[in-house]
Amino acid sequence: MSLTAAAIQDIEAGIAGGDRRMLAKGITLVESHRKQDTGAAQHILEKVMNQTGRSVRVGITGVPGVGKSTFIETLGMQLIGHGHRIAVLAVDPSSPRSGGSILGDKTRMPALSMRPEAFIRPSPAGGIHGGVAGKTRETMLLCEAAGYDVILVETVGVGQAEVEVASMVDFFMVLLLPGAGDALQGIKKGIIELADMLVINKADGDNLPAARLAKREYEQALHLLRTGTDCIELCSSVTGDGISRVWDEVNEYIGKGKQTGHFETKRRDQLYGWMTRMTEEAVLQDFREDDRMRNALAAFRSQLEKGETTPVIARNKLLNLYRKISADRI
Amino acid sequence: MSLTAAAIQDIEAGIAGGDRRMLAKGITLVESHRKQDTGAAQHILEKVMNQTGRSVRVGITGVPGVGKSTFIETLGMQLIGHGHRIAVLAVDPSSPRSGGSILGDKTRMPALSMRPEAFIRPSPAGGIHGGVAGKTRETMLLCEAAGYDVILVETVGVGQAEVEVASMVDFFMVLLLPGAGDALQGIKKGIIELADMLVINKADGDNLPAARLAKREYEQALHLLRTGTDCIELCSSVTGDGISRVWDEVNEYIGKGKQTGHFETKRRDQLYGWMTRMTEEAVLQDFREDDRMRNALAAFRSQLEKGETTPVIARNKLLNLYRKISADRI
Repeated sequence: MSLTAAAIQDIEAGIAGGDRRMLAKGITLVESHRKQDTGAAQHILEKVMNQTGRSVRVGITGVPGVGKSTFIETLGMQLIGHGHRIAVLAVDPSSPRSGGSILGDKTRMPALSMRPEAFIRPSPAGGIHGGVAGKTRETMLLCEAAGYDVILVETVGVGQAEVEVASMVDFFMVLLLPGAGDALQGIKKGIIELADMLVINKADGDNLPAARLAKREYEQALHLLRTGTDCIELCSSVTGDGISRVWDEVNEYIGKGKQTGHFETKRRDQLYGWMTRMTEEAVLQDFREDDRMRNALAAFRSQLEKGETTPVIARNKLLNLYRKISADRI
Repeated sequence: MSLTAAAIQDIEAGIAGGDRRMLAKGITLVESHRKQDTGAAQHILEKVMNQTGRSVRVGITGVPGVGKSTFIETLGMQLIGHGHRIAVLAVDPSSPRSGGSILGDKTRMPALSMRPEAFIRPSPAGGIHGGVAGKTRETMLLCEAAGYDVILVETVGVGQAEVEVASMVDFFMVLLLPGAGDALQGIKKGIIELADMLVINKADGDNLPAARLAKREYEQALHLLRTGTDCIELCSSVTGDGISRVWDEVNEYIGKGKQTGHFETKRRDQLYGWMTRMTEEAVLQDFREDDRMRNALAAFRSQLEKGETTPVIARNKLLNLYRKISADRI
């Protein structure tokens, strides 16, 4: 059963008023895979659109064990102390529907999750065709409309999610362990390149010398391979050392971006890029999910392997088939 | 005017017989942007298809100044000495139609270009929609059909070409300069990750200590950032030192791949991947080159920036428009 117009209006008004329960309901609608929810979700998104955009959007990634939860807890509590309202969206591809097993647990941030100024929500992956970070963009917009002015989008650093998250935030940071050699075990290729800052976490006590060495080694490696940022900070989520410096860097980066216009340009390009990528993805989905196309691809694959056709000839035939499939879907 | 059937047959027979002039004609047809050449090119490709695949395909990249020409000249002459026939295809994106200004000049390899066992050819970039390495795959197939058993595909390391070339060769190597810090000036992000081997060229005379240091530094950096291969060789294209060791590594890699089946699997996946990428690219080209679509994208962009629509709503409307455009093209 689809929602009544009154129920939809309640959710819209609730979000605008900062009602957490209504915000959660709105997000559930946006994340819903049920066809009858699509209309309501789009209605709500349209309605709140002009209330969005006034937050700082930060992506935070790092492999399990690097201390993301404690980092976000400490950072989040500091930001609340400065009068901010924080939304934490945890994108976990390990479990598409349930919201993931690695990041799904609110008890990871016990202090933050008790605060009314914080909203913590796992953001389920969208499945094979929906992109890993499925509806995280839409969820971010709803949180902004509900008055959260810092959005932290958290990922586990092991897959495609980071590329998508980096394309929806103003600033993207990668958390690393001290002990440089071991720090990137499991982190996916290419993620360091996305970073606006590397943060070496757990830089406290006996770890401090190793953390300082790691900083120098990363600086050299980044210089040598010309990959990623040159901004590397040390911090300890346990003692709190360095956390405010990390945030100062974020603010400085964004402040500069607003002066130069880079901030606005990046946001516009992200929005336009999102629309075109979604459209092209939808176009290719018509292509990939049709049985006639799947059968044709399999047949051409076998012909290719036997040397009975060439990729160019196969391409021409497949393109014609696709156009027919596309016409059938009008 | 299109070619007569007899002229096409001459080219096919000439290629099969290893006639360089006919091979060059065939490649020109394949590279042609003239509509009337498409049929002949496809006919020739189909005809030679079962004569292809029996070569070693190696991609070689590095920024201008790293010594690619001398490296290929020295390697090529050694391989000819061992009874091989070498085709060198130089992909240069700097000048789409003419074959490029950086790699287009045959005098770069004076000894090799005099040898009947070597065939050197610039491979023009395909323009915005054709992929940077345009028809390099097809050209490679024609060279194989003409009996060249080592194909060296050369790129300048500054753009998209490397990703495409890496997806069509059995082995991909990146040439670097000694003096690690300066060596990657200008090399594009992500290219190191594609490499099966890094080769530090100019490792001779006074450069030798710097080259050895560079090797150690790259080893550490690659380990630290978990990016790319761990195989790094030193060589000098001028003295010839290390060149045969580089080739031994290539042979060992390919030999192992043939034992494990990885070689065959990779080739098959490359062929199938080529076909599907070309098809999807053609599908998206229908999308991107239509004026109605361009106008709609511009209109939605402006609406997005004013907050008058959401990307999801725009996507749905654009998808419907696309299906109509696609239907019109049947």
